[in-house]
Amino acid sequence: MTTTVPLSRDEAVALDQQSPLRDRRELFVLPDGLVYLDGNSLGALPRTVPARMQQVVSEEWGTGLISSWNTADWVSLGRRVGARIAPLVGVDPADVHVGDSTSVTLFKTFVACARLHPDRRVVVLEPSTFPTDGYVAAGVARALDLELRWCDPADPAASLDEDVALLALTHVDFRTGAMFDMAGLTRAAHDVGALAHWDLCHSAGAVPVSLVDAEADVAVGCTYKYLNGGPGSPAFAWVHPRHQDAWDQPVTGWFGHARPFDMDLGFEPASGIQRMASGTPPVLALSALDAALDAFDGVALDDIRSASLSLTDYFIALVDARFGSMFEVITPRAHSRRGSQVSLRHEQAYGVVQALIERGVVGDFRTPDVARFGFAPLYVTHADVYDAVEQLVQVMAHEEFARPSYATRNAVT
Amino acid sequence: MTTTVPLSRDEAVALDQQSPLRDRRELFVLPDGLVYLDGNSLGALPRTVPARMQQVVSEEWGTGLISSWNTADWVSLGRRVGARIAPLVGVDPADVHVGDSTSVTLFKTFVACARLHPDRRVVVLEPSTFPTDGYVAAGVARALDLELRWCDPADPAASLDEDVALLALTHVDFRTGAMFDMAGLTRAAHDVGALAHWDLCHSAGAVPVSLVDAEADVAVGCTYKYLNGGPGSPAFAWVHPRHQDAWDQPVTGWFGHARPFDMDLGFEPASGIQRMASGTPPVLALSALDAALDAFDGVALDDIRSASLSLTDYFIALVDARFGSMFEVITPRAHSRRGSQVSLRHEQAYGVVQALIERGVVGDFRTPDVARFGFAPLYVTHADVYDAVEQLVQVMAHEEFARPSYATRNAVT
Repeated sequence: MTTTVPLSRDEAVALDQQSPLRDRRELFVLPDGLVYLDGNSLGALPRTVPARMQQVVSEEWGTGLISSWNTADWVSLGRRVGARIAPLVGVDPADVHVGDSTSVTLFKTFVACARLHPDRRVVVLEPSTFPTDGYVAAGVARALDLELRWCDPADPAASLDEDVALLALTHVDFRTGAMFDMAGLTRAAHDVGALAHWDLCHSAGAVPVSLVDAEADVAVGCTYKYLNGGPGSPAFAWVHPRHQDAWDQPVTGWFGHARPFDMDLGFEPASGIQRMASGTPPVLALSALDAALDAFDGVALDDIRSASLSLTDYFIALVDARFGSMFEVITPRAHSRRGSQVSLRHEQAYGVVQALIERGVVGDFRTPDVARFGFAPLYVTHADVYDAVEQLVQVMAHEEFARPSYATRNAVT
Repeated sequence: MTTTVPLSRDEAVALDQQSPLRDRRELFVLPDGLVYLDGNSLGALPRTVPARMQQVVSEEWGTGLISSWNTADWVSLGRRVGARIAPLVGVDPADVHVGDSTSVTLFKTFVACARLHPDRRVVVLEPSTFPTDGYVAAGVARALDLELRWCDPADPAASLDEDVALLALTHVDFRTGAMFDMAGLTRAAHDVGALAHWDLCHSAGAVPVSLVDAEADVAVGCTYKYLNGGPGSPAFAWVHPRHQDAWDQPVTGWFGHARPFDMDLGFEPASGIQRMASGTPPVLALSALDAALDAFDGVALDDIRSASLSLTDYFIALVDARFGSMFEVITPRAHSRRGSQVSLRHEQAYGVVQALIERGVVGDFRTPDVARFGFAPLYVTHADVYDAVEQLVQVMAHEEFARPSYATRNAVT
């Protein structure tokens, strides 16, 4: 790919026809003519979801009413959906729970990790992490009198020492698409006796993740990006089994109780990952996510990775070929360090993204000067990549980025 | 009602025809022939919800994709839905936020309340509260080194003194249906300099609540009971404006930031109730709740209260008339102390509830010996009450409660 760039659309279409994922795009609703390169912000709608929502609303809720807690097994929905995410991140199905927002889930896991190391006062995280990770960590640090230590993203291990309770890193950077070496950094954390906590928001469903093989301790991930769970869908959490018995998350609600329906006065935590639960499970959101995960049934993770690298390679190669140094590709070119997105730096990045959207190519802008393009391997094609770059050529040729009307932002990840 | 009980079904139907809420039942999907007296566990499905879910899934998500954060204003959805709940609990629409589960929301409000009183170490709550309130409070107490003081539910004020930071009471008891005097107990808390925190899970949408008039400080409530938001729908939180500037909830996620989309490294809390937010709003669940609240449009709270009291009066009168002392009515007979449910104590309560369900009358069982019946004023009728008691007569006459097949429980609130 780095030597010969297929410069015609027919060649791009031919690449798509060879892909083992070629039938997956049909599993998604995508508006005609739209090139959607923002699945790393909000995943596209899987076709299975509308019918499932109709069923859960009209049948399970409307007709089954309260009995659906048993007959539709709403009680275990957070674990059942978690079990379906497990193979995408390389863990046992019994060890994943889905329930709260990413921010709330991070709060719970950060506190629980700190409690596993009551003698250590430092949390290391990188300043390029998605903001909510830093905000939540700061809140936890204030509550527990911990110190936040911001590492150099180029060398997080340099910030580790025996004061560190927790190394909390985002596996794939939301802005640059750079991917950390999970196994290596987990080892580095363990070498100083610290825990390794991984944010998989921009990884799960898009790049191979092997938490158990990496010997990671804890992971949290978003489900509305590459997992296509729908806007604001709840996050998943994984805790290595070796920590589950001592796991002590702070939001001790009734669904994390060993016997919630006994309604005892005292709290006794559930065993296993269920103790990550707090409140009543969000049944509608979990059901949408459950249906969305059908799109991953039978997909080999290696095929996802191959498709992702082929798409991002192709995008980078076309950008190089069409624009030379006009854009700085800030996403690593090395496969081992690349997530499933490509980010381009340009001082007019905001206008560029807006002009592309007007032309039917949806990426997004990240402050201060980044145009970000996500390649969801299940539904983005090489033809999309070709079309996106052709539209970008037009945007740049006519300086469409300079239109004064680009005054609002769509900057939600 | 206490003197003359309408003992014929025709009389019950006549009462329904006189009700100002008589047209509301048609706004709900209720299975034919079912008498649903469990809306205090899971509210019935409002007819507006399926179409709204279809629209939010297929149009806002499927077609609008990421742009719907702006075009459908998903960003403010938690506050917009909160504003619609506000008139049901007697507060300003600007001061309510909906986002996380009840348990998570309670965690945030309990911690924030304790932080408003860093010099005080005691949280008073009543042992009959719904378990998750006690579990969460215990978790908060452990995290912040506070003391939980369990009061006598018959006289919570007796447990107040100047060590108390917070009096946290459930307005209407989930098991008995007993209602506290919100204004009086709030005054008692304030008299010792403590805050008054109200759990409105079994109040909002069923009994009149006037938080501002009562000078309450904070309130949290469930939306899947009388507000009909659907299984596991997110909770609402209200914070009195006098506390909002100093409000310091612990889960400082990006949606509680003053400028979330600037993605700054440091956390600066949003002003007003928005700082109760943590993660990305659960758009599907919030949209279902938003549609469900249509059923309250144009309803006078006084009419809801009148209907509720008429239904519960009627149920109690029929139970008295049909069964004498066979059941103990543990719900207060005094209107001023009664929520919108009636609970009957009977040593075979579990079997009684199961046998009633088999006969198409859905109430629920609460340990150890309580049969609980909720009367959602928007859709429960006097005819339902009549039919329920007639079925109960059959259950008791034939000792159907003693069937060995009643071995599982549907005990989710």
